Amino acid sequence: MSRLTAPNASLSPWRRRIHDIIFEADTTAGRLFDVMLLGAIVLSVLAVMLESVDSFYLRFSTWLIAAEWFFTVLFTVEYILRMLAVRRPLKYAFSFFGIVDFLSIIPTYLTLFLTSDAHYLITIRILRLLRLFRIFKMARYIGGANLILMALRSSRPKIIVFLFAMFTMTVIMGTVMYIVEGPLNPAFSSIPQSTYWAVVTITTVGYGDVVPLHPIGKLIAAISMITGYAIIAVPTGIVGAEINRHMKMQGDYSNQACTNCGAQIHTSDARYCRICGEKLTTE
Amino acid sequence: MSRLTAPNASLSPWRRRIHDIIFEADTTAGRLFDVMLLGAIVLSVLAVMLESVDSFYLRFSTWLIAAEWFFTVLFTVEYILRMLAVRRPLKYAFSFFGIVDFLSIIPTYLTLFLTSDAHYLITIRILRLLRLFRIFKMARYIGGANLILMALRSSRPKIIVFLFAMFTMTVIMGTVMYIVEGPLNPAFSSIPQSTYWAVVTITTVGYGDVVPLHPIGKLIAAISMITGYAIIAVPTGIVGAEINRHMKMQGDYSNQACTNCGAQIHTSDARYCRICGEKLTTE
Amino acid sequence: MSRLTAPNASLSPWRRRIHDIIFEADTTAGRLFDVMLLGAIVLSVLAVMLESVDSFYLRFSTWLIAAEWFFTVLFTVEYILRMLAVRRPLKYAFSFFGIVDFLSIIPTYLTLFLTSDAHYLITIRILRLLRLFRIFKMARYIGGANLILMALRSSRPKIIVFLFAMFTMTVIMGTVMYIVEGPLNPAFSSIPQSTYWAVVTITTVGYGDVVPLHPIGKLIAAISMITGYAIIAVPTGIVGAEINRHMKMQGDYSNQACTNCGAQIHTSDARYCRICGEKLTTE
Amino acid sequence: MSRLTAPNASLSPWRRRIHDIIFEADTTAGRLFDVMLLGAIVLSVLAVMLESVDSFYLRFSTWLIAAEWFFTVLFTVEYILRMLAVRRPLKYAFSFFGIVDFLSIIPTYLTLFLTSDAHYLITIRILRLLRLFRIFKMARYIGGANLILMALRSSRPKIIVFLFAMFTMTVIMGTVMYIVEGPLNPAFSSIPQSTYWAVVTITTVGYGDVVPLHPIGKLIAAISMITGYAIIAVPTGIVGAEINRHMKMQGDYSNQACTNCGAQIHTSDARYCRICGEKLTTE
Repeated sequence: MSRLTAPNASLSPWRRRIHDIIFEADTTAGRLFDVMLLGAIVLSVLAVMLESVDSFYLRFSTWLIAAEWFFTVLFTVEYILRMLAVRRPLKYAFSFFGIVDFLSIIPTYLTLFLTSDAHYLITIRILRLLRLFRIFKMARYIGGANLILMALRSSRPKIIVFLFAMFTMTVIMGTVMYIVEGPLNPAFSSIPQSTYWAVVTITTVGYGDVVPLHPIGKLIAAISMITGYAIIAVPTGIVGAEINRHMKMQGDYSNQACTNCGAQIHTSDARYCRICGEKLTTE
Repeated sequence: MSRLTAPNASLSPWRRRIHDIIFEADTTAGRLFDVMLLGAIVLSVLAVMLESVDSFYLRFSTWLIAAEWFFTVLFTVEYILRMLAVRRPLKYAFSFFGIVDFLSIIPTYLTLFLTSDAHYLITIRILRLLRLFRIFKMARYIGGANLILMALRSSRPKIIVFLFAMFTMTVIMGTVMYIVEGPLNPAFSSIPQSTYWAVVTITTVGYGDVVPLHPIGKLIAAISMITGYAIIAVPTGIVGAEINRHMKMQGDYSNQACTNCGAQIHTSDARYCRICGEKLTTE
Repeated sequence: MSRLTAPNASLSPWRRRIHDIIFEADTTAGRLFDVMLLGAIVLSVLAVMLESVDSFYLRFSTWLIAAEWFFTVLFTVEYILRMLAVRRPLKYAFSFFGIVDFLSIIPTYLTLFLTSDAHYLITIRILRLLRLFRIFKMARYIGGANLILMALRSSRPKIIVFLFAMFTMTVIMGTVMYIVEGPLNPAFSSIPQSTYWAVVTITTVGYGDVVPLHPIGKLIAAISMITGYAIIAVPTGIVGAEINRHMKMQGDYSNQACTNCGAQIHTSDARYCRICGEKLTTE
Repeated sequence: MSRLTAPNASLSPWRRRIHDIIFEADTTAGRLFDVMLLGAIVLSVLAVMLESVDSFYLRFSTWLIAAEWFFTVLFTVEYILRMLAVRRPLKYAFSFFGIVDFLSIIPTYLTLFLTSDAHYLITIRILRLLRLFRIFKMARYIGGANLILMALRSSRPKIIVFLFAMFTMTVIMGTVMYIVEGPLNPAFSSIPQSTYWAVVTITTVGYGDVVPLHPIGKLIAAISMITGYAIIAVPTGIVGAEINRHMKMQGDYSNQACTNCGAQIHTSDARYCRICGEKLTTE
């Protein structure tokens, strides 16, 4: 964000004011804007979700259409304001959030150009669902969780290896069950189907739509479950260790060094050096 | 608690004695009171629960009503004693536990004023269930687990972001499944219903009341499961790291108080108070 | 164990030899004995388990009875040897493992005194199952895992508070679902039944025998699942942190101090102090 | 790998070139080879999996047979090249990956010698499935995850004890449920069946094919679930702590080698080699 907006000294005062409200969360107005936008996103997503419930749509279609246009106009205004608030609108328009913001409003306008002709019904249905894309606008707020993202990012190679290992394991388990259960249990009639069962089992989801019937199949299933149960420790351990590491790096500690003895890493409420008793200089 | 009771020097000796028994857990009498109260809470909650089982109620209604009055009188006595034991009864009455204690006894008395008229049946039923509120009296004992609560509290912003991310993910997964499975599987007939499936799947609950039938739906489900399986690492990692940190703080920190300013919890290598700079007396 | 056997100098040489084989795992004979005993325990438990399978019992009853007597005689010999190998047999007989060893052999002998009269059938059945008690003989080997046991023991108060919190949560969730789903869903016809559902859901087991049908019930269920999913982090975090702590305490580090500079905690392969370069004295 | 190929100075230049491409991942050609091989493995495994889907096989048998031969020839070429690229082909042929590579190609050739006679149908079916063995070729890439493997390996004794404890717990839980539910619930008609239920429950898989019906059975089930839920913390904690430890070893340790004895992996505050006492040269 900062890359797009940093040298906004050149913006006229009122565009600067808009910029502060929309892009910054430090001022009261900025924080209010954020909360209201977040609320609007959640409500507009709920509206699209409820629209897909037939019984609900039949009774409240007028309200849903009204809400739809209300949110579309709202997000359009937001889109225009964002355009005005940055020095280089084109750069914003083609950034990730620029595209998300554009896709959040365009489907509603497009429906105007489509008669509810039978030919266009599917197109309209997909356009309607595209509005759910708005949920990605929330990423702006999720993005704040950089600790988790950093932890996930730095454990990515390990997670990929873990996924490969899971793929190998579930295929082997699925094939074994296909051989054991296949001949008598239609739910294990093919390897992909058996592998689906293996994934459902090893992740401890356990729908129960595919279950072993033969005693040996049940024994293998029991072994698979305990294996899966032990294996969940791996991603948990990896991500946990990473989060631990990132947390420790940020910590509740100030990185301030004592001017007298150089001792570092004081608790953030410390006013005196815990090693030599020198007063710490406040920042 | 200490805020309510600290300067209880002004209480008469017998009120002080009651105070020690009810509010403190250090004396034998105090500990006995705590154990008996905890038992009474659990038993009274079980009684209300069993009352809702029709076959049980029909056979044991006399016993249940007797138990009900026994516990109500017991908690009433406890309520009155608590009132007497504190210097400012009103402040207690409007504190969290004061309200919980009041709500634990009032429903039973209210039923006396209601004839078992058909009009009042629902009111009575709700009043009966309100007695389950007593379970919150247990919070007094759960409150001791301040390590866990502290860990949960300090990981709250991260947990909120995690919940937002879960919401985004389940809505997207639900929408994809609604498009794939919707046309042929009545269990995926709307986005809210599909999102319900996504939550059931990603949390590895897996009831099996909503399951994909189409091969592509099963493939997407399998991917969702493994994603959910990897994602459980995130809250576990966050809370685990926080618990780790709080534990370490208790561990690596001496509980020594500064003789000058009274500041507590110094790092174990500290030789000077980090707040006032006073030399710490070594044990 | 050492408390029972430490001053075994007074044992005659051959009793001492038996003692070394049975109680110590350091010698080849001792290790062989342990492995064979473990195998016998597992096999005898499997035999009792298979006996309960009607179709299996009808075909292999002769074999199962033979196996039963074989293992009973084996464990009897082991019991007598253990008696001989300790200086104070009575103390062993009333210790935890003495009782387990006795209960592992007595049911088979008792069946001799019972005619297979209809009156005794249930007694015989329970006696047969009591033989499963043998599985506790395995605890001798599980006991080696003192790290895990220590971690679990030192996190016991926190785990108890966690269980209390779980009880509170499931009762409240169950009551809410009883109010919402109860009137139209027979699976939520009472609070205990609804609480059972809450436990099945919050632990992510999700049998699917009790599922919400009403949209609002599904919404509450979804919230419960995500809550349960976040809450699993708590015991994991507690036990994980404890294991971490105990591991660190044992560690790959020797506790040896440098005779020159006093620096402590060297890696166990270290021969020179990593701080001052002084040769470390080997133990 | 290095043991097989290290002194490849004696290889002729073009064999050396092949060696670099096949065994090393540092060059562009080598990396390209790795990615393509990984793709070929995944595709060939998917082909074997899809072959087991009857409806798919009926429509695309020509394509599947073509793909089968394409991959077999490809892996044969790879096998020959690997033979050429190492100095001691026999040693490679009998190494783990040599056997995997051989088993990946031989089944397809063997089917040529078998007429699709009814007698050989099962043999052919098993041969076909043996091709799935190719998935183990992926282990070459999974092997990179030595941190996870090291963590799992060093927690093996604890994991074994954990598995023993799980076995004990599930058998006891299963026996209790057999006694409680057995007489009225056919799903708990034998101890192995009840133990299967216990595994399904304690691992939180929860298929729902075996569920308690009696209130007491449900109560025991609920207790089992919460126990299982608390117990998942144990493997998670063990593996997590190990990963943490290995990560820290990589982190807190400098990779610096002693110029005197070559000992590596010193703690980052080390100033002297802990093996030979030589002063470490600071970077």
